[in-house]
Amino acid sequence: MNLKQLGQLTKRASKILPTISTEVKQEILIAMAAQILESADQIKRANQQDLESAQEKGLSNAMIDRLTLTDGRIQAMADSLKEVASLDDPVGAIAEQYERPNGLVVQRRRIPLGVIGVIYESRPNVTVEAASLCFFAGNGLLLRGGSEAFHSNQILVKILKLVLAKYELENVINMVPNTDRSSVDEMAKMNEELDVIIPRGGEGLIRRIYEIATVPVIAHYKGNCHLFVDESADLQKALEITLNSKVQRPGVCNALETLLVHESVAKDFLPDMLDAMAQQQVEIRGCSTTQSYSEEVVEATHEDYDTEFLDLILAVKVVKDLPAAIEHIQTYTSDHTEAIISRDETNIEAFTKSLDSSAIVVNASTRFNDGGQLGLGAEIGISTTKLHSFGPMGLRELTTTKFVVTGTGQVRE
Amino acid sequence: MNLKQLGQLTKRASKILPTISTEVKQEILIAMAAQILESADQIKRANQQDLESAQEKGLSNAMIDRLTLTDGRIQAMADSLKEVASLDDPVGAIAEQYERPNGLVVQRRRIPLGVIGVIYESRPNVTVEAASLCFFAGNGLLLRGGSEAFHSNQILVKILKLVLAKYELENVINMVPNTDRSSVDEMAKMNEELDVIIPRGGEGLIRRIYEIATVPVIAHYKGNCHLFVDESADLQKALEITLNSKVQRPGVCNALETLLVHESVAKDFLPDMLDAMAQQQVEIRGCSTTQSYSEEVVEATHEDYDTEFLDLILAVKVVKDLPAAIEHIQTYTSDHTEAIISRDETNIEAFTKSLDSSAIVVNASTRFNDGGQLGLGAEIGISTTKLHSFGPMGLRELTTTKFVVTGTGQVRE
Repeated sequence: MNLKQLGQLTKRASKILPTISTEVKQEILIAMAAQILESADQIKRANQQDLESAQEKGLSNAMIDRLTLTDGRIQAMADSLKEVASLDDPVGAIAEQYERPNGLVVQRRRIPLGVIGVIYESRPNVTVEAASLCFFAGNGLLLRGGSEAFHSNQILVKILKLVLAKYELENVINMVPNTDRSSVDEMAKMNEELDVIIPRGGEGLIRRIYEIATVPVIAHYKGNCHLFVDESADLQKALEITLNSKVQRPGVCNALETLLVHESVAKDFLPDMLDAMAQQQVEIRGCSTTQSYSEEVVEATHEDYDTEFLDLILAVKVVKDLPAAIEHIQTYTSDHTEAIISRDETNIEAFTKSLDSSAIVVNASTRFNDGGQLGLGAEIGISTTKLHSFGPMGLRELTTTKFVVTGTGQVRE
Repeated sequence: MNLKQLGQLTKRASKILPTISTEVKQEILIAMAAQILESADQIKRANQQDLESAQEKGLSNAMIDRLTLTDGRIQAMADSLKEVASLDDPVGAIAEQYERPNGLVVQRRRIPLGVIGVIYESRPNVTVEAASLCFFAGNGLLLRGGSEAFHSNQILVKILKLVLAKYELENVINMVPNTDRSSVDEMAKMNEELDVIIPRGGEGLIRRIYEIATVPVIAHYKGNCHLFVDESADLQKALEITLNSKVQRPGVCNALETLLVHESVAKDFLPDMLDAMAQQQVEIRGCSTTQSYSEEVVEATHEDYDTEFLDLILAVKVVKDLPAAIEHIQTYTSDHTEAIISRDETNIEAFTKSLDSSAIVVNASTRFNDGGQLGLGAEIGISTTKLHSFGPMGLRELTTTKFVVTGTGQVRE
């Protein structure tokens, strides 16, 4: 069977999903969780094969770590399936209802997107995360994992399909049986079979798919996140929030990359901030004013302001006022997360209105731009593209709405 | 200035739009309406130039009609600007608000999409429609009209920009200064400058843009709309609705193309339906059962069931039950509009749940799948793509949402 046929098979099988009840979907997710725990040894054996090739290929320790499935991680996969089962089913929910003057009742009802293509790299737990979210939102799923996790992904999909088969739903989840680069290219053009592609991985993978795809892509590029300490900021809170945003988990997309400081609080804020960052081994790349507070500060370049470091590095710039902060952010933003620390409602509102990133955070850490933290339950990623979904994508964002128009014989004049 | 620079100019200028108040936007739309009426003679002169070239090129009467701007149509453009000004401003609306256990207040606020590219064919009134909707929803707009309406479009954009200039907003609307085919290709790849492209025109234009675009496209392909007369249908209503769906305006996307009839009502329904259609000069292409009721009925082919006739032609098929009707629709649907005439709640719900087209209409005409009819005020088109927006697109569909997260110093543990 070629890839297009596999897509068609998935599409045909998934037609039934909008009519499957919430209870049956929950039952299936819970059965999947049990089956994964039961098959833990089998999963670890397959994972071992991947780990051996990874070592042969000389993959980095970080990559090998992301690839490794321990008992704890297998348990976490099972837990995540059960967690999704506990969320509200978005399918069939009535997003809006009203009556027209001619008596027509208009509803917008949530429906699945159709078939979702997920193209991802080395972490095998993405297989289970994507499957649980896409399935519960009523979507067919065509997975294309990376070569490093080939055997792990194969066994995980086999386990999920074993459960689905008991409900005659085996083909609503399929996995591309190879990891050839050509299969990414082919998926990217399968407009008849796929409604959307969600890439999960590095910027290179995402850009490449975006470039070649004719299927709509929801992309999560990167988070060049900013935090502005306003004139009226509570400087103690500003310090705590800056530190948390930068160091609590520096390698993720909602971590802080550039700090902007209002010049009137620079002398009260910067020395403490620089001390605290130094204690956390954070390298500072700053403007000349910032440099005047510490000899350790390297001069920040245009490129530094444009970089998602994903590391213990922070760019710092003193700005003369709020408009200057907004202008800097508008120049360098990746539309992910921007935060303001302020006690001035007018400034907070101006900041919030002027910047259209996926999340504007007021007096809190940038790290809150996350599906779990914002109450979405689970997320398949954080979209930095404005179309369809902007910001963390949970179950609801894996659906769309259709109009249901109910009349009593109305015709148009 | 090249096209990319024109896009950048539009993008920069439109950054201010999210902060412009509703009142100012209304004032601008009303001033645009007045300016258009004042400039009616100038518009007609430019339009005359287009009409002369159209005649030289030997365009069809239908195309020349669509191109012609009469006093009535100029008045209608002015009215449509005022109508948009009377609608609710979607920008800044709070789509959702809730509090998290840690006290963070999470809002989803509506924001503009950014800069919208509209690529369209011969009707010059699309210039004003697109401008009013995109502008009121806070978006920059880069227009690329067809060669037939070149002079008309130029003068219309000039008039709109004259009004915008008084508010220092001149560059939020720009028009590509040529109608070269290469400008479509270039726009389709301007990911840095454009957030979405909305093509308005024939299937050929749309498919071509879809094929080459790296910018997201919201496409309105076609409406191969179905109507199913169920066993329990009120046959008198079924007849009126079928007629209205087919003949009230056969050349539009929400007109009926294929009628499906439950076999148990075929003998009571088909003779009257065939008579009524004959009176309206509708050509019928039917299955063998349909043919048994009239010698006029041509045999329907697979291709007929797959065609959007946009004409006084109707495909008819007698099916053995509801599942057979659903299966037929699933095979041939273009995801636009499907209707059921039935008094059986179970069947209505099964039909509504099983088919995920942009509108499912129950006991009413397919012609109601329209932004105006569904209460959206005005529409920029009817999307048949599920991503972002599915069905008629009004002002709200020209926006997205961002998260606004307000705290009191919260950090992540």
